[in-house]
Amino acid sequence: MLRSVTYRTYTTVATSISPISKTLSTAPTFDNIIKAIQNDTNNNEKSIPIINAWITSIRILKNVTFVDLNDSTTADPLRLVINNNINNEDTLHSIKRLNLGQSVSITNLQVQRTPDRQQAFEFKLQPTSQISIIGDIQPDYPLQKKNQSLTYLRSINPIFKHRTNYFKQQLKFRSFMEFQIHYFLMINNFIKVAPPIITGNDCEGANNELFKIKPTDAYLTVSAQLHLETLLNSTNKTWSLIPCFRAEKSNTNRHLLEFWMLELELAYIDDLEPLLDFIREFIIYLVKQCREHENDLLPRYYPNGVDDRETILTRWDSLIDPSKWNTVTYDDAIKKLQESGQDFVFKPTWGKALQSEHEKWLAESYFNGTPVFVTKYPKDCKAFYMKQTPENPETVECFDLLVPGMGEIIGGSLRENNSAKLESEMDRRGMNKRGELNWYIDLRKNGSVPHGGFGLGLERLISYLFGNHNIKDAIPFPRSADSQIKL
Amino acid sequence: MLRSVTYRTYTTVATSISPISKTLSTAPTFDNIIKAIQNDTNNNEKSIPIINAWITSIRILKNVTFVDLNDSTTADPLRLVINNNINNEDTLHSIKRLNLGQSVSITNLQVQRTPDRQQAFEFKLQPTSQISIIGDIQPDYPLQKKNQSLTYLRSINPIFKHRTNYFKQQLKFRSFMEFQIHYFLMINNFIKVAPPIITGNDCEGANNELFKIKPTDAYLTVSAQLHLETLLNSTNKTWSLIPCFRAEKSNTNRHLLEFWMLELELAYIDDLEPLLDFIREFIIYLVKQCREHENDLLPRYYPNGVDDRETILTRWDSLIDPSKWNTVTYDDAIKKLQESGQDFVFKPTWGKALQSEHEKWLAESYFNGTPVFVTKYPKDCKAFYMKQTPENPETVECFDLLVPGMGEIIGGSLRENNSAKLESEMDRRGMNKRGELNWYIDLRKNGSVPHGGFGLGLERLISYLFGNHNIKDAIPFPRSADSQIKL
Repeated sequence: MLRSVTYRTYTTVATSISPISKTLSTAPTFDNIIKAIQNDTNNNEKSIPIINAWITSIRILKNVTFVDLNDSTTADPLRLVINNNINNEDTLHSIKRLNLGQSVSITNLQVQRTPDRQQAFEFKLQPTSQISIIGDIQPDYPLQKKNQSLTYLRSINPIFKHRTNYFKQQLKFRSFMEFQIHYFLMINNFIKVAPPIITGNDCEGANNELFKIKPTDAYLTVSAQLHLETLLNSTNKTWSLIPCFRAEKSNTNRHLLEFWMLELELAYIDDLEPLLDFIREFIIYLVKQCREHENDLLPRYYPNGVDDRETILTRWDSLIDPSKWNTVTYDDAIKKLQESGQDFVFKPTWGKALQSEHEKWLAESYFNGTPVFVTKYPKDCKAFYMKQTPENPETVECFDLLVPGMGEIIGGSLRENNSAKLESEMDRRGMNKRGELNWYIDLRKNGSVPHGGFGLGLERLISYLFGNHNIKDAIPFPRSADSQIKL
Repeated sequence: MLRSVTYRTYTTVATSISPISKTLSTAPTFDNIIKAIQNDTNNNEKSIPIINAWITSIRILKNVTFVDLNDSTTADPLRLVINNNINNEDTLHSIKRLNLGQSVSITNLQVQRTPDRQQAFEFKLQPTSQISIIGDIQPDYPLQKKNQSLTYLRSINPIFKHRTNYFKQQLKFRSFMEFQIHYFLMINNFIKVAPPIITGNDCEGANNELFKIKPTDAYLTVSAQLHLETLLNSTNKTWSLIPCFRAEKSNTNRHLLEFWMLELELAYIDDLEPLLDFIREFIIYLVKQCREHENDLLPRYYPNGVDDRETILTRWDSLIDPSKWNTVTYDDAIKKLQESGQDFVFKPTWGKALQSEHEKWLAESYFNGTPVFVTKYPKDCKAFYMKQTPENPETVECFDLLVPGMGEIIGGSLRENNSAKLESEMDRRGMNKRGELNWYIDLRKNGSVPHGGFGLGLERLISYLFGNHNIKDAIPFPRSADSQIKL
């Protein structure tokens, strides 16, 4: 019997099947309430049997009390307006006990459109309404003021930090970005795989930075790359987003012991150019999505020391413009640095790694605040698996993407797919003495293909786009060199 | 100045911005080639300047040679048809060197529609075509036969295993499921967060199963639940999909040292029913998506010992029907087991955990091969954080979802949100002597709300739906009690 003549390509986009949960879409959450009143164009007012929410602000005026409520299903809080002359002793008593941070249930409200006010909708307390405190707070509840300092917020327990508008929006921003990353790669037929966290291999030569785990005699992975490469024959395009671990001593704004890395490998790539083109398309897609959803994503309040809304939007708009992206070879970058007349702490020297100050000057001064790919570094600056530049045995087919304020957020290369060249480079570096990477070399001996890929530090990207200049804010429970790990 | 009156709800679906990469969509991959010929309805034939692919099968007949090629961008291989009388010495020489597993580049092909053949499209070699072997294979290339045994495939290096159709499709199935999970939760306004892998806490009372990591004095997490609960005030609905670790000794078809767990918490849930409804909706959505994409997802070849296409489709169809889902209390389950007349190794006794044989009988025999939620277990069978049943202090508001052949794939509960009850239960169990979980108790003292959630073992779900009965196949590099971790 003939099989179906519809040729099977691996297409994966969601279909006509409704993905909305009936259970959740009928719950009395703020997003559902707003949706209901927006859909009902005949009515500007609706009765709501019950709401559950947290109090984010209370303001008592002479005749009226404003209570801002948020159940975290919407970016903005909804305002509850209470007439202080309300004729209900119970309610008046309840109102006096209200405090910022409490969770409350309120029955029999009205919600109405208020297009002429700062809030587009507001709740009105009715004489029959009942307010119950579901979860009270302790006297030392640490979030009293609206705009507490970043230093203070970073110092308090994560159970409080994320209740502030700024950190809450950062959680949502990361969640949004993760989805958009997943969506973009899925649409473009990448296969997401789960490389192991527990591994026998050190991918990056990060020997002193490995976490050893007991009771196995193994390590926590520093990168998924080698494992992704093993799956390339099965997937053509593959990616993963996994936690990676480096027992680094550096306690900076750009380092974490535990960070999430998006890694991606592409088969049949034998030139850097399509790889850089793809990255530019990918980032531009992500930033366009941010721009499209800016009202959902950006905070209402910006603590001191982070970029404000305008700075962020200017950055996004600049990133969206493909003409603002630059590429420079390492050779040229060194020349530009040497000719800059700048007084660097480390003298720019061919053959040495670029220092933070060099990266900063390139992205911020020379390329005027735009992203720049630096390509073809000397081989001794980079990892063993990178492909030799055909016309120059001293350099490799690699790149770093540098951005202003953050430095490198992506690093990648073509991978050496010639087993003899790979082995000789490993010998030169004194690697693989015990044959522990023979399996990796063997990949090149069985249907090998030219390929390349990159790693993107998710927290660095989030931090750069969200404008907080500290990757410790881009992950809810940061693990860094000086953190005591209790939670 | 008034802010925009458009109320900001956190909606997140992708928009009009094109997510297709121009670079990748113009590459000479099979999916692009098929798309081009399908879109060009005037032509049944197209010239292709170059293709890159792996050889998956070679069959030489008297007059013609068939070479199946796959570049892994399509579910099916494309067949290259070679006329053996071709008048080109170079090409004839190349053809003789072709072997299964090699990667090749071929220039100047024709691709044509062949609606009357088993393949809907095929490549034709032209007199001007050139075949180059890009990556040769070693003489001991281990994938010669089409249908090698599962036991053999599991024993060989993962770099080969995933080149077989069955394991390749399993990688794609997992990738597809991860996307559909992400999509469903995103549409339903869940916030995805990144709980830490390195932690100071043991969530499950799995004390002897913790991986300790050096040089920090911390552990690899066994669950993200406690951390997700801390973020619930900021998110309302939150989830994560992270690797979890248990240093278990059990080497079974249902256990891994390192597995991926989808965990999810919902605020303002005070009854099990909406939680179970939501799970049913969620799984039904996922399975409907599988059904819709069955041609892309299911393997062409099924090794012995796994479910075939028909069995899988029957299972999917049964899962899609909400009336085939059952719920039974632990009390009733024990009664049914006791009254069953079955000869169990472990006697079903109230207060004791359900054994595998009991779960099997319930899902497979009593409920006739359908999924069943078992609810309200005795508190000593379950973890400390579960909420007491209001009407019975001996049981808790929890559930396990049992499915035939796999047993538990989801476990969840309402969480005790009363700090006094939580502390007294921890005291009764002799927990928290050093106060290491005070932060968790404190969550209940600051704006706490009723909430609940669950954990789903991703590999168990994949394995159940894909029908391979062994979760070690559902992850590319399985880590189990007996595995030597080299890669």
